[in-house]
Amino acid sequence: MKPIQVGLLGIGVVGSGTFNVLKRNQQEIQRRAGRGIEITMVADLDEARARAVVGPDVQVVNDARKVIANPDIDIVIELIGGYGIAKTLVLEAIAAGKHVVTANKALLAVHGTEIFAAASAKGVMVAFEAAVAGGIPIIKALREGLTANRIEWIAGIINGTTNFILSEMRSKGLDFGVVLKEAQRLGYAEADPTFDIEGIDAAHKATIMSAIAFGVPVQFDKAYVEGITKLSAQDIKYAEQLGYRIKLLGIAKRRPEGIELRVHPSLVPSKRLIANVEGAMNAVVVQGDAVGTTLYYGKGAGSEPTASAVIADLVDITRLHTADSAQRVPHLAFQPNAMSDTPILPMADVVTSYYLRLRVADQAGVLAKVTGILAESGISIDAVLQREADEVGGVDATQTDLIILTHDCVEARMNVALAAMQALPTVLEPITRIRKEELA
Amino acid sequence: MKPIQVGLLGIGVVGSGTFNVLKRNQQEIQRRAGRGIEITMVADLDEARARAVVGPDVQVVNDARKVIANPDIDIVIELIGGYGIAKTLVLEAIAAGKHVVTANKALLAVHGTEIFAAASAKGVMVAFEAAVAGGIPIIKALREGLTANRIEWIAGIINGTTNFILSEMRSKGLDFGVVLKEAQRLGYAEADPTFDIEGIDAAHKATIMSAIAFGVPVQFDKAYVEGITKLSAQDIKYAEQLGYRIKLLGIAKRRPEGIELRVHPSLVPSKRLIANVEGAMNAVVVQGDAVGTTLYYGKGAGSEPTASAVIADLVDITRLHTADSAQRVPHLAFQPNAMSDTPILPMADVVTSYYLRLRVADQAGVLAKVTGILAESGISIDAVLQREADEVGGVDATQTDLIILTHDCVEARMNVALAAMQALPTVLEPITRIRKEELA
Repeated sequence: MKPIQVGLLGIGVVGSGTFNVLKRNQQEIQRRAGRGIEITMVADLDEARARAVVGPDVQVVNDARKVIANPDIDIVIELIGGYGIAKTLVLEAIAAGKHVVTANKALLAVHGTEIFAAASAKGVMVAFEAAVAGGIPIIKALREGLTANRIEWIAGIINGTTNFILSEMRSKGLDFGVVLKEAQRLGYAEADPTFDIEGIDAAHKATIMSAIAFGVPVQFDKAYVEGITKLSAQDIKYAEQLGYRIKLLGIAKRRPEGIELRVHPSLVPSKRLIANVEGAMNAVVVQGDAVGTTLYYGKGAGSEPTASAVIADLVDITRLHTADSAQRVPHLAFQPNAMSDTPILPMADVVTSYYLRLRVADQAGVLAKVTGILAESGISIDAVLQREADEVGGVDATQTDLIILTHDCVEARMNVALAAMQALPTVLEPITRIRKEELA
Repeated sequence: MKPIQVGLLGIGVVGSGTFNVLKRNQQEIQRRAGRGIEITMVADLDEARARAVVGPDVQVVNDARKVIANPDIDIVIELIGGYGIAKTLVLEAIAAGKHVVTANKALLAVHGTEIFAAASAKGVMVAFEAAVAGGIPIIKALREGLTANRIEWIAGIINGTTNFILSEMRSKGLDFGVVLKEAQRLGYAEADPTFDIEGIDAAHKATIMSAIAFGVPVQFDKAYVEGITKLSAQDIKYAEQLGYRIKLLGIAKRRPEGIELRVHPSLVPSKRLIANVEGAMNAVVVQGDAVGTTLYYGKGAGSEPTASAVIADLVDITRLHTADSAQRVPHLAFQPNAMSDTPILPMADVVTSYYLRLRVADQAGVLAKVTGILAESGISIDAVLQREADEVGGVDATQTDLIILTHDCVEARMNVALAAMQALPTVLEPITRIRKEELA
C-alpha cells in the first residue's frame, strides 16, 4: 500500500521537528500504523529555510495553495498559526477534501465551530492533539480514554512560559519583571510575551478542553482571562507559608447553573502533585465521576514534543480516513447533533475561595473591621496570617500585611466585600486578590 | 441504530461498577459514542448477587456459555480473572465472533500471544485498557498517543496495594508486617496478598506494557519479579536521608542488547513527581525519544475507576467494530507481522545503580575493605552514609550501618561484589541490596 502523503504548511520549530521525527522513526511508526507516512510537499515563505530542513527529495513551494491543490496529498498539516491566513488555508484544505492536522489553538478556540462544521460536512477529519499541552496526549485521554465519565472539572498548567516564570519567582524569590527578562534570554518567553503572560494562550487551550469535556461549543469570548504580571514574590512567599503554591491554571468546571471557564493565578495546596510541576512542564488534572482524579504530565511545547502530538494525529487519520465518519471520534468528543447549550458562566457567578493580602496601618481594630466586612458579606474565613511589615523587610514598621484565606463564595459577593475593605482608611494599598483551588 | 448489546461474565466489584456507570452515564456515553451501549445479559455463579445488581430487566444466567452463544450479544466482557476458565471462555467468545473486553492482566501477560492471534484470525478485537493501571488510559496513551515515538523506557507504580503499604511504612515508620495487617483491615490488601506484595501483579502489567512499548510478544516468564516483603522501615528512612523514596516499580527498558523487564523495589529521587505518588494511587512514567518524559496518574484499582477503562474499551469497539481490522489499532500497538524478536535480558545483564546497607563491626578499616571490593569490581561509589548502630536505636553500639549508593553497573558484577563483601568477617548480617533508578 502506498504511503500516506502529507503536505506541510509552515516549517518553523514544530514543522522541522515533525519532519525530523517522522523521518527518524519512519520504521517504528510504520510498524504501528501499518502504512508509511511521508511529508512529500512543504510550503513556506522562506523556501531556503524549508529546503535546508527537508533536503533535496521533498517538493518545496512558497505558496500553500499549491500543497492544497496537489491531488496526491492526503493530509495537510497547518503550522502557520494565528487566525488570519491559517484559517483561510484550513478551510480551503477542508473544501479540497484534505484531512487537516493543526497545532493552532488560537484558531480552534475562536473559529473551531465553523471549522469543525465544514470538516464534518465534507467528511474529513481535523485533528489537533498538538493544540493543547504539546506532547501530552490529553485530547485523546479526554475524547476517548475517559468516555465513560461525566467530567466534573479540568484544571491544568497549560502554558510552559508562565509556569517557568512562576517556578523561578518561587525558587529564587525574584519578582515577575526580573524573571521575565531571564526567561526571554533563555528562550522560554518570546520577545512579545503577551499571549503567554496575560493568560491568552492558556485560555485558548482551556476553551478547547471545556468543549471536549462538556460537549459545548468552543467559546473563547466567554472565557475569563487573567495573567501573572501582577504577581509578587511576596505573595508567592506568603502562599508557601500557608501551604500553597501559586500556579497559572486553566480551569473548566461543570456546575448545575453552567460551566466555569477561567484562566488566572491560583493557590494550589503544595501537597497536590500538580503543585509540584516545575519549570516549563505542563500538567492537566481531570476529575471524572467514575475514574476520580487523573493527571497527565509532560512537555507542553517545543519542537519534538509538539511533533509527537502532530504525528499521533497523522497515524490516527491514516487508520481512520477510509472509515465512514460516523465511526470516527467526533471532533469535540460529542456527536455534532448531541452538543449541549449549557451556558458559560460570567466570572461574577464563579464559586471559588480566595487569598487576600491587605497592606494595613498597624493599629488596633483593623483586623476586626476587615473580618467584620467579610462576615457581613457571608464570607467565612479559613485562615489569617498577620506579618509585621518589618518582617517583610525594608518597609515602614507602622504597616502590616494581613493575609486572609477564605472558604468558597461566589465572586460577585467577594467583589462587593473587596470594595468595602478597600474603602477603609486603614487599608493603605490596593488589595491583592488571588483565587484558590483545593483540587480535591 | 439499535444499541450495542454487551454480555458480562462475572459481576463482582468491577462488574457491578461497569454496570452502574454504564447505566448512570448512559446519555453522556451515547452522546459521545453516537450509539447506545447496554449490558443485556450477565453470567455469574451467584445469580442472586447478579440479580441484586442489575435488577429485573437484564437476563441473568449462571452459565457463561449461554452469553457467548447468544447471537444478539456483540461484545463480551470477561471479569472472572485468572488463567483457568477465563482463558477458555475468552477463546470461545472469540471463536463465536464476539469482541472481548477484559481486565485480566494475568491472562494476557501469560497467554496474550495465543489470545491475540485467535482474535486477529477471527477479525475481532480484544480490548484491555482496564488490565493495566485501572482507570488511567495508559494503554491508549502508549498504543495511540505516543505512536510517533521510539519508546525508551517505562517505569510505573502499577500496584496500589504495595504503594499504600510503602507510603504507610514511610509516613509512620512502621515495618512491613504491621502495615500489611492494617492494609488488610482497610481492604487495601487481600486476605492472601501474595500476588500484590510479591510483585506478581505488577509484573503482569509491566509485561503487557513492555509488549506495547517495544513491539515484542508478552513474555511474563522472562520478567524478573521481586516484591516488597523484605523492606524495612530503616531502609526507607536511610533512603529518605539520601534524598530518595522507595517505590515498587514495574520497569521496561530498551537497551541495544535487548529489553529489561523487571519489577522490584527501587530508590527514586524524592524530587521526581512519581516519588510523590502516595497511597493506593498509580502512576506510569513513559520516556519517548520525541516527547521526552510524560507521566500518567490516577486510581489503579477499584470498582468505578476500573469500570471507566472497561467502558472506554466498549466505546472504542462500538466505533470500530464495523471497520476492517487493518484500520484498527493493533492489539499490541504494532502490526502482528511487524513484531520484533528483541530478547528480554536476564537479570544478570540488567544495568542499574544500587543502594547497599551493610551491618558491620565498628572497627577501623571496614569501610576500606568494602569500598576496596567495589573498586576491584569496577563499581564506582556515588555516596556513602555511615550511621552508628546506636543512632538507629536499641542495638549493639559496637555495630555500624554502612549505606552505599553506587553508580550504574551490570547486575552480574554487583552479585560478585556482594558475595565478596558478604564473606568479610566484619560484615555481620546479610547485606541489603535495593536497586536505584534516577528516571532522568
